[in-house]
Amino acid sequence: MAEDFDVTPFDVEGQVDYDRLIDKFGTEEIDEELKERFFDLAGDENLYMKRDFIYSHRGLDKALDEYEEEDGFFLYTGIGPSGKMHIGHIISFYFTKWIQEKFDVNVYIQVTDDEKYWDRDITDEEIDKYAEDNIREIAAVGFDPDKTFIFRNREYMGHMYDGIVKIAEKINNSQAQSVFGFEGSTNIGMNFWPAIQNIPTFFEDKRCVIPAAIDQDPYWRIQRDIAEKFGHKKTAAIHSKFIPALTGPEGKMSSSKPKTAIMLDDSPEEVEEKVKKHAYSGGGDTLEEHREEGADLAVDTSFQWLRNLLMEDDERIREIAEKYSSGEMMTGEIKEILVEELNEFLQEHQERKENADELVQQMMYDGELAQEMWDRNIDLELQR
Amino acid sequence: MAEDFDVTPFDVEGQVDYDRLIDKFGTEEIDEELKERFFDLAGDENLYMKRDFIYSHRGLDKALDEYEEEDGFFLYTGIGPSGKMHIGHIISFYFTKWIQEKFDVNVYIQVTDDEKYWDRDITDEEIDKYAEDNIREIAAVGFDPDKTFIFRNREYMGHMYDGIVKIAEKINNSQAQSVFGFEGSTNIGMNFWPAIQNIPTFFEDKRCVIPAAIDQDPYWRIQRDIAEKFGHKKTAAIHSKFIPALTGPEGKMSSSKPKTAIMLDDSPEEVEEKVKKHAYSGGGDTLEEHREEGADLAVDTSFQWLRNLLMEDDERIREIAEKYSSGEMMTGEIKEILVEELNEFLQEHQERKENADELVQQMMYDGELAQEMWDRNIDLELQR
Repeated sequence: MAEDFDVTPFDVEGQVDYDRLIDKFGTEEIDEELKERFFDLAGDENLYMKRDFIYSHRGLDKALDEYEEEDGFFLYTGIGPSGKMHIGHIISFYFTKWIQEKFDVNVYIQVTDDEKYWDRDITDEEIDKYAEDNIREIAAVGFDPDKTFIFRNREYMGHMYDGIVKIAEKINNSQAQSVFGFEGSTNIGMNFWPAIQNIPTFFEDKRCVIPAAIDQDPYWRIQRDIAEKFGHKKTAAIHSKFIPALTGPEGKMSSSKPKTAIMLDDSPEEVEEKVKKHAYSGGGDTLEEHREEGADLAVDTSFQWLRNLLMEDDERIREIAEKYSSGEMMTGEIKEILVEELNEFLQEHQERKENADELVQQMMYDGELAQEMWDRNIDLELQR
Repeated sequence: MAEDFDVTPFDVEGQVDYDRLIDKFGTEEIDEELKERFFDLAGDENLYMKRDFIYSHRGLDKALDEYEEEDGFFLYTGIGPSGKMHIGHIISFYFTKWIQEKFDVNVYIQVTDDEKYWDRDITDEEIDKYAEDNIREIAAVGFDPDKTFIFRNREYMGHMYDGIVKIAEKINNSQAQSVFGFEGSTNIGMNFWPAIQNIPTFFEDKRCVIPAAIDQDPYWRIQRDIAEKFGHKKTAAIHSKFIPALTGPEGKMSSSKPKTAIMLDDSPEEVEEKVKKHAYSGGGDTLEEHREEGADLAVDTSFQWLRNLLMEDDERIREIAEKYSSGEMMTGEIKEILVEELNEFLQEHQERKENADELVQQMMYDGELAQEMWDRNIDLELQR
């Protein structure tokens, strides 16, 4: 199976040296062997991982060992409700959902309506509005409503404060400041945040696996330092690369800069206009130049998005890569393909969001896992 | 009325220059005029205040204005459950109860089972044990069970976290560090503590009045900085002097050093033995010297405790002061009086503690105020 993943010779990375990030953060590459093992256990291939968009990890091998030994693992991710969500936000949830589906594990999704209040100049009303909207987007991803718990920190705090007290006692100001970059001007809420961020990694007596972009890795150093003091396992992580902004690999997709991102509620027409107007092209400046030199796939947003996020068909993406890089396919053509794929993806997502009332209710309150969580009080015990 | 308070010419202070503390903390003396007004409104005199043991304040005059205008005020105090309670701990609760009784106001008592975990090397089991015991001691003081809410932070957190989030956003690390002396080695729980300590001052839309020893005053600076941002009043405070240790004015009463303190559960025999053995005497070293020079009332624990905490009868304490300071009364005699007064006080207290089950239940859960508080969610709104 493994041989097939390397679908193109065009395994190009744009502006970021991802190998260096692995060195920098001290994580491990997801090599062919681990990838094969992951797919074997899943009984399926995952688009993002086979295209090496998901490419680094910490302790994933251990989580798989434990899965095979039937100790299992669980997934934890989250969202900060400070804006509408774009396609970059939701991909990580789709990946998480894929793991849940294939490995039949629980997923905990923390909605950080406290942290966003501390971190941004934002009102309660805005936080409420975005939390409700973001939760619907996430529910629309299709998580198992009986194995998924979406919780707003402010609402669930009473059930996890005992555990948070224990974690907070094990983190000092210097550690929090060195890991999160806090300063004297940081408010004491934000300074307390690491304790709240960590508590879900202790929700089950199994290894927690966190899917996240690789730059998030350092924020889990504290968990790895303290987990075993409470008789828990160090959290594992699966790291993605960064999704380039629509406007090109230098920028960051941002909800507040609409042209850099495809929003989850963009209409087909908006998608078409944004892609045609703003999608950064790696093609030649002139027709002549393009026909001669072809496109630079590494910086071409349309190609990167199609390859990393959207196009399941290996043959087809290989063909696009060949034709576009050789100059046979024009930027206009690949943009058409991107528009089509994006709109298909968004249409399905939007339909599910439209009908997500019941799913939201289940994942927050009425599903099996949610009910269990509302009956629990999360506490930790020091191993002495 | 006011003239009568100054019962003795022996208005002596021991080692501490209490006027300097007023200057240092920028508080105000409770002068004769304010004292008279307070007693008039209360319809009664208070032992601790008439002896100037309660001697300084911040905003008490405003609280009394508002009381007269029928806006009212409420009382807030607390206990850190890290040990058994001694007589020094309970006096402040007796004063608080006196104010409640005379002014018919609500009292909130925060049991800081989170802060003590962060501040001390103490287990959950110890905290639980002391919290239960301390709460019984406090209930035994005789607060109005329908106007008193005793809450353990860990248990009540879910009802006040929204408000705490708002407070925490208004305090930065530098402020918390300068007021509380936090450092890099302080854990992030303790660093967050100011937000939790402050929330009860916002429990009602009236002025909060905090009875505490004067050295606690700086910890409320933050509340006074932020209160009006939330449309609330700055908290007022009524300050006591320090109660000298049994072993003398240099020491501090401490539950962990039994000979320095009378514990609330000491038996009459233990009280007698402790006082006779350890009560620091201001009397002369020899009979001759004592008869000649008399006792130094300023450093004599027996006299200080009797005058400040125990002996209601103005005539009698004046007589003791005269006789003891003149050398007519011996140390052994004043110790006898102290033993008698202490044992009377403790016996009544212990009896009420013995029968406090129902009171505890009411003040924590079933009384009118408690029920109201368990139905509430405390949140704050910024005034924009």
